[in-house]
Amino acid sequence: MRIPKGHPRYHSLQVRHRLLQGLRDGLVTEAGLIAQGRGEAFDYLLGERSPSEARRAARAAAALLLQARRPVISVNGNSAALAPRDLARISRLLGAPLEVNLFYTSATRERRIAAHLRAHGAPTVLLGGGARVPGPAALGPRARVHPRGIAVADVVLVPLEDGDRTGALIRAGKKVVAVDLNPLSRTARTATVTIVDNLVRAAPLLAETLRGMKGWPEERLERAARFDNRGNLDRVVERMVRRWTGIRR
Amino acid sequence: MRIPKGHPRYHSLQVRHRLLQGLRDGLVTEAGLIAQGRGEAFDYLLGERSPSEARRAARAAAALLLQARRPVISVNGNSAALAPRDLARISRLLGAPLEVNLFYTSATRERRIAAHLRAHGAPTVLLGGGARVPGPAALGPRARVHPRGIAVADVVLVPLEDGDRTGALIRAGKKVVAVDLNPLSRTARTATVTIVDNLVRAAPLLAETLRGMKGWPEERLERAARFDNRGNLDRVVERMVRRWTGIRR
Repeated sequence: MRIPKGHPRYHSLQVRHRLLQGLRDGLVTEAGLIAQGRGEAFDYLLGERSPSEARRAARAAAALLLQARRPVISVNGNSAALAPRDLARISRLLGAPLEVNLFYTSATRERRIAAHLRAHGAPTVLLGGGARVPGPAALGPRARVHPRGIAVADVVLVPLEDGDRTGALIRAGKKVVAVDLNPLSRTARTATVTIVDNLVRAAPLLAETLRGMKGWPEERLERAARFDNRGNLDRVVERMVRRWTGIRR
Repeated sequence: MRIPKGHPRYHSLQVRHRLLQGLRDGLVTEAGLIAQGRGEAFDYLLGERSPSEARRAARAAAALLLQARRPVISVNGNSAALAPRDLARISRLLGAPLEVNLFYTSATRERRIAAHLRAHGAPTVLLGGGARVPGPAALGPRARVHPRGIAVADVVLVPLEDGDRTGALIRAGKKVVAVDLNPLSRTARTATVTIVDNLVRAAPLLAETLRGMKGWPEERLERAARFDNRGNLDRVVERMVRRWTGIRR
């Protein structure tokens, strides 16, 4: 696909290209392409840049992850295709494993995603479904989580998730950091901290924030982790609505 | 894909299934899946039902199409996969050909789409790209239009279009009826009449409206065709924003 440099949506088309490559490489599913389209629509309403609310959420998220005893990063096909290098960097900064955990489970696809993440610098990749571990019943349809990964995690970073899953993690007593472009989604409203942003911007933003806050004393992290997620989401909604009604004129 | 009947998004997942089948049958492209996702996001903001603005637009659209000397219905992979039977019905009601006209031209895909439309009752299907006719320069990248189709049409119905294309048709002096879920898109703002609705609801709505208005005297159609497209679009935006801020509470 040739994309002319001057195209008004050059950057978004480049990202899309990464996802189509992911489909060809067997990382991404067709349902993943539709999910990407849904994200694109909300990103368009966001103006295709990180709002200040995303930066505030990234700070609270970084504090939660740095305080965690066992942080785990849950990865699916889309997130692996879109931001493998930044997810690997977050994994190294936290000393936290990446766990491949798919909605449509497939051992082949899991292995491909793991290889892709390792090729982009991820030191530890666990296979959630491959491990065939009956997880806590509360985790629902995707109960198969890795025994040294999500099963025992206290904070889980879930970029690009479905609402059912995030609710199950919360009910299982875990804290969840979500990246979601829809500030009204169940995932966004249910997570402990939601970064409303495109993953291709949110992943480097979070990595940079983690790098800056690493080594902070416990009580400073404690303060930074205090966060009104609903209030922050409401401000993103207001921002989108302002932009939306502004475009009209 | 098994979809439980009680799933909150049962209907939207069924529609998605139709599109994935279209991909398997070679009608739909991967870019088409992403476009579907974008539509889903706006349909979610619309509450997944036809707003009264869509009914008003369908009335003006029907009047334009019934007054046309040479109406043509432009069809792409997604619209053929989503609403083949209703598009065929609109074609019969108007005595207007369907013209397969693709963004990513492919003779094989065009033939498959045409066969699919015929199997669903379409009497006349023209192949826009297959005809290799140098259309008017104003039609831009997709200049290949059929000499007895879009090339000579005065009113073109374009369900699910990209903005570049609609602008080119308008500049070529044609009236355009568009179906688009994004009331702020270039297509929506550029078209003569825009029905902001999901094609799976808009196509039967337009067919029903055409059936009801067929045989109306010329001056009654003339009055019905008068339409403030921008004003109508603004009302849809306001409706979406009301719903959007309402969900929050």
